[in-house]
Amino acid sequence: MIVRLTEIEIEPTYLDAYLSILKEESKASVELEEGVISIYPMYLKEKENQIRILEIYADKKAYESHLQTPHFKHYKTTTIKMVTSLKLIDMHAIDVESMPMIFEKMKAN
Amino acid sequence: MIVRLTEIEIEPTYLDAYLSILKEESKASVELEEGVISIYPMYLKEKENQIRILEIYADKKAYESHLQTPHFKHYKTTTIKMVTSLKLIDMHAIDVESMPMIFEKMKAN
Repeated sequence: MIVRLTEIEIEPTYLDAYLSILKEESKASVELEEGVISIYPMYLKEKENQIRILEIYADKKAYESHLQTPHFKHYKTTTIKMVTSLKLIDMHAIDVESMPMIFEKMKAN
Repeated sequence: MIVRLTEIEIEPTYLDAYLSILKEESKASVELEEGVISIYPMYLKEKENQIRILEIYADKKAYESHLQTPHFKHYKTTTIKMVTSLKLIDMHAIDVESMPMIFEKMKAN
């Protein structure tokens, strides 16, 4: 499993446009790609142009395949001018016994 | 809903001890508290003593109640000497239509 916490800073004038494109890309990735487990996007309440995305892919192959999809390429090419900073941070998910219950509760909310 | 991305730096010599206490606390919180939806802990692959936790609470009341539980108080008092930096970052989850599917997939993996 590949877990990543992506930190993105958006030029503020583009924020609405960026979020709209991100939502479309997130939806398409999760719906169309079996190996894309999560693209969970957030922004900082105090700095709305600071985006964080919890990305989870089944494996490296699923991630590399994701990079070749039309929806990812559309996202990448249309938002490149909007992004002022991008950090891809590889994470290790710390296994806790309650993980299945966490996801069950997320789903119910 | 309260969403928070917590950034914690641990004194490296305490890392194993810290992770053990964190796992216990995470498990107890999710199992015993209805309003604790997620405590999803990770560390940076390149800096294992840099912890990130995606915390999701049903509401403010659930969060305040969490702070008063014996398992949270135990975590807080036993780890305070291990923590060299702590940032609590309030987040806004960006609603995407695929959110239920994201959690469904997380659960299945």
